[in-house]
Amino acid sequence: MRQLWIDERIAYDGSQLRAHWVLDRCGIAGDAIVGFRGPCSVHASEIADLADIDGPGIAADDMVHFVWESFTAADLLLAVHRQRLLSAQAVEVLHELAPAAIVRRDGDDLWVGTGKLSISIATVSPVSSLVHFAVNAAAGGAPVPIAHLAELGVDAAIFGKALLQRVVDEQASITVARAKVRAKGEWR
Amino acid sequence: MRQLWIDERIAYDGSQLRAHWVLDRCGIAGDAIVGFRGPCSVHASEIADLADIDGPGIAADDMVHFVWESFTAADLLLAVHRQRLLSAQAVEVLHELAPAAIVRRDGDDLWVGTGKLSISIATVSPVSSLVHFAVNAAAGGAPVPIAHLAELGVDAAIFGKALLQRVVDEQASITVARAKVRAKGEWR
Amino acid sequence: MRQLWIDERIAYDGSQLRAHWVLDRCGIAGDAIVGFRGPCSVHASEIADLADIDGPGIAADDMVHFVWESFTAADLLLAVHRQRLLSAQAVEVLHELAPAAIVRRDGDDLWVGTGKLSISIATVSPVSSLVHFAVNAAAGGAPVPIAHLAELGVDAAIFGKALLQRVVDEQASITVARAKVRAKGEWR
Amino acid sequence: MRQLWIDERIAYDGSQLRAHWVLDRCGIAGDAIVGFRGPCSVHASEIADLADIDGPGIAADDMVHFVWESFTAADLLLAVHRQRLLSAQAVEVLHELAPAAIVRRDGDDLWVGTGKLSISIATVSPVSSLVHFAVNAAAGGAPVPIAHLAELGVDAAIFGKALLQRVVDEQASITVARAKVRAKGEWR
Amino acid sequence: MRQLWIDERIAYDGSQLRAHWVLDRCGIAGDAIVGFRGPCSVHASEIADLADIDGPGIAADDMVHFVWESFTAADLLLAVHRQRLLSAQAVEVLHELAPAAIVRRDGDDLWVGTGKLSISIATVSPVSSLVHFAVNAAAGGAPVPIAHLAELGVDAAIFGKALLQRVVDEQASITVARAKVRAKGEWR
Amino acid sequence: MRQLWIDERIAYDGSQLRAHWVLDRCGIAGDAIVGFRGPCSVHASEIADLADIDGPGIAADDMVHFVWESFTAADLLLAVHRQRLLSAQAVEVLHELAPAAIVRRDGDDLWVGTGKLSISIATVSPVSSLVHFAVNAAAGGAPVPIAHLAELGVDAAIFGKALLQRVVDEQASITVARAKVRAKGEWR
Repeated sequence: MRQLWIDERIAYDGSQLRAHWVLDRCGIAGDAIVGFRGPCSVHASEIADLADIDGPGIAADDMVHFVWESFTAADLLLAVHRQRLLSAQAVEVLHELAPAAIVRRDGDDLWVGTGKLSISIATVSPVSSLVHFAVNAAAGGAPVPIAHLAELGVDAAIFGKALLQRVVDEQASITVARAKVRAKGEWR
Repeated sequence: MRQLWIDERIAYDGSQLRAHWVLDRCGIAGDAIVGFRGPCSVHASEIADLADIDGPGIAADDMVHFVWESFTAADLLLAVHRQRLLSAQAVEVLHELAPAAIVRRDGDDLWVGTGKLSISIATVSPVSSLVHFAVNAAAGGAPVPIAHLAELGVDAAIFGKALLQRVVDEQASITVARAKVRAKGEWR
Repeated sequence: MRQLWIDERIAYDGSQLRAHWVLDRCGIAGDAIVGFRGPCSVHASEIADLADIDGPGIAADDMVHFVWESFTAADLLLAVHRQRLLSAQAVEVLHELAPAAIVRRDGDDLWVGTGKLSISIATVSPVSSLVHFAVNAAAGGAPVPIAHLAELGVDAAIFGKALLQRVVDEQASITVARAKVRAKGEWR
Repeated sequence: MRQLWIDERIAYDGSQLRAHWVLDRCGIAGDAIVGFRGPCSVHASEIADLADIDGPGIAADDMVHFVWESFTAADLLLAVHRQRLLSAQAVEVLHELAPAAIVRRDGDDLWVGTGKLSISIATVSPVSSLVHFAVNAAAGGAPVPIAHLAELGVDAAIFGKALLQRVVDEQASITVARAKVRAKGEWR
Repeated sequence: MRQLWIDERIAYDGSQLRAHWVLDRCGIAGDAIVGFRGPCSVHASEIADLADIDGPGIAADDMVHFVWESFTAADLLLAVHRQRLLSAQAVEVLHELAPAAIVRRDGDDLWVGTGKLSISIATVSPVSSLVHFAVNAAAGGAPVPIAHLAELGVDAAIFGKALLQRVVDEQASITVARAKVRAKGEWR
Repeated sequence: MRQLWIDERIAYDGSQLRAHWVLDRCGIAGDAIVGFRGPCSVHASEIADLADIDGPGIAADDMVHFVWESFTAADLLLAVHRQRLLSAQAVEVLHELAPAAIVRRDGDDLWVGTGKLSISIATVSPVSSLVHFAVNAAAGGAPVPIAHLAELGVDAAIFGKALLQRVVDEQASITVARAKVRAKGEWR
């Protein structure tokens, strides 16, 4: 699994959560997670979570985005677990970068008090699974009250790169753990 | 998925991490997680993690144990992800019960400073996946330096029941999330 | 797995056999089977069975419809088995409601003499498996000779609700059976 | 998928429900269902259904047995569906051979009044799925009240061969159905 | 798995690599490989390999084509392995038909010196896996230097039929091999 | 996927084809193929291919062995395809090292004239798939007429290392190919 932090800003509109966008944009073929900073405004036609279609909209002026595509193990149920674990990892990274901040995880959402800090979705394409996770970097542009990295005193790029590294490290350790365990038998 | 806190103490020796132990012990047929308190001493023949076989041994005098068996989705890679998420959830529960404590997750292990707070393994039987996760409740009996709930001021049963509830709630929300997402297409 | 009998009549045109139609129409997220009464006229563009595209058309004036969507186990081969079992269950329900009737199952089709009593298809969406099964409630509108519930003296809604219940009950018993069986070894 | 009726009587003790027993006994490599007549007495160590271990025992003096091993699609959940469909097919065959008989299916069990007509289990080996289904051919030897083919006026071998044929025919039609269906898209 | 050599020439434009094209064109429902001769000119919209989209184009005046669709085991990773094995089988057939020729396999491509002898792709549809493999039969029409069967002294139809037979024979032997092997246990 | 040529000779008796033998022997956790030289004498209890149990025995004095364990994609049908491709790759390597030799592949067996050059089996453990492939390095010890590398003028270690490299390279290219292909739609 590869990682890449893209220094260029990219306006996320949902079309990035497609099969092979990472290949097309970054030239990486295979399991990868990429991060970048940019505004967010998801077209209704690109909204994957049906619960969001009639919602207030998915938008913010400045976010740190992560797009994770997996070909090797592309099951949707697994992708949702990876998304939840990614959310928990984000809390852990924030705890290291801003020990005084109280960040709460509720499923795939992060909250600081009553401010929503993140958005996320896990889905599938015909050939892969896909996860989008994004954290507000600064105020502005959101249809709901938000929290953001700036008010936590966290640098967006440092956070982005730290989370990429944590995801890749944990996936590597998961691969080893899966290969080191032996099966168990039947009770009585 | 069902949950059960067993009030009776059970000495965990590794044989509980078998297919249908939950059915045999608790009469629950199907996906379930159960929790109980008791000492831990895993027989070498029952050690699932090959990395542990030549290690210092797996033992402690007083732990809160969780045994999770899944039949519906029994893939080992998924089980390892569930195990990691379970570890992250344990940190979250501890953060609520003991806000001042600094608990660090490293893969499936929890640490408080240099004291190891937990042990865990994820494996498969021929018909299910299995996760064992256990947190030290009090001092004593371990072959390595440990941390424990008592020194964090956390009641073992309260912690155990809270973590059971969190796991079951999050699995329910994962099931709904998986069923509410639509697929995405192909780039260009 | 949830069930719902929709009292309102719905004109089935094949577009109901889509991912998340049950969620959109009934607000149910997750594995579910719903039943309703209404006419049937499947647009060619919505016909899933390629054997039917050049056939006489799929239509009838009054049918009892069932739409079953599964996310948890969405394999197509499994869906076809579920469809066949559903057809067999329909015969069993009819045998209870109209003991004198001779209903014959041929694959996923039910017949009364030379009258075709039912239509059915099992297919997949990118995120789920889907089964449509429908039984003629009254005469009229079909391009082939049909049998119908009215001539068997069977009330459409009673039949519909009874079959929903039977499907849900049997799926529950299948889940338990799958979780109660232990694996077997190798011969010699 | 192949079928074979074995004319020789075989005493079923549960050890036949093993991987490759059909290969070893009949020389058939691959997906197959075989039928034979013989007494039944399942050793406790061979009982696959944990619900039966502390039960009255699994025995009868004269049964028609079916052993079905699948390598191509060896999932346990699918095997349980095949087992249920097999039970329904048995009712259909009996309805043809003994139209006056009232045979009721409850899950994988067949009943005639309060007499249990059949036993069945579906399980897995490390390389295949396995189904045993057996119908009492004559009275005697059972620990519970039974019904049997003789009292229904049904010849055991005729029944056995007819059910083998029905299973093989339906599996063939399922394979074709799965290959003739096209996928459906997403709602709105 | 069935095979068919189509005597009529068919102009391959990529649209043949679709779910159910074999059913539509040849009336075969289920796993099958078909072969035919014809020119090749793949529309950009039909190119499956993203590495080819900005390439020199996929075209030649006269090729022997193979289209292989699998429903029974439709996993993409398996399909790529089948494609590679198919390429190796083509070399083996050519070695028999033209022993003096030096044909080199590089992944899914065959080469004779610096001339490209073949093209290939493996992909999936929503219900099946699909492989296209084609070998140049004669010179002309290609955007890159090619080798062809004519210069090797190999008759296109003889080659085509021989490769069809080899694929079908090896898949049959694979099915038997998979059903004849027993599982192995755990080290120490 | 990792590779390792073990310089030390190892007597292959079949017990090496176990889950985690590579981990235990070489300290490699995860998908890997290892090669070594040594005699071969497979205990009947370790024979995985049931067709071999009553055969002449599996033995030779000097072979080049390959043991390949896969955790990431552990399906048995895939493993048999990998085994067949491995056999084809061995022919390709031999063709490079000994261009004048005529080596014929028949399924997973290699032949030189009437001499059997290789043995092979693909199987599964509860947590992985396993392939053993071995080529005779020198004469002696076999219960059937054999061919061997020495008479082809091929150095055993050079062959062994070249085949390891080819397998790893092709698996890497397969991973990329699987990640670069887009899905295809439905015919008409």
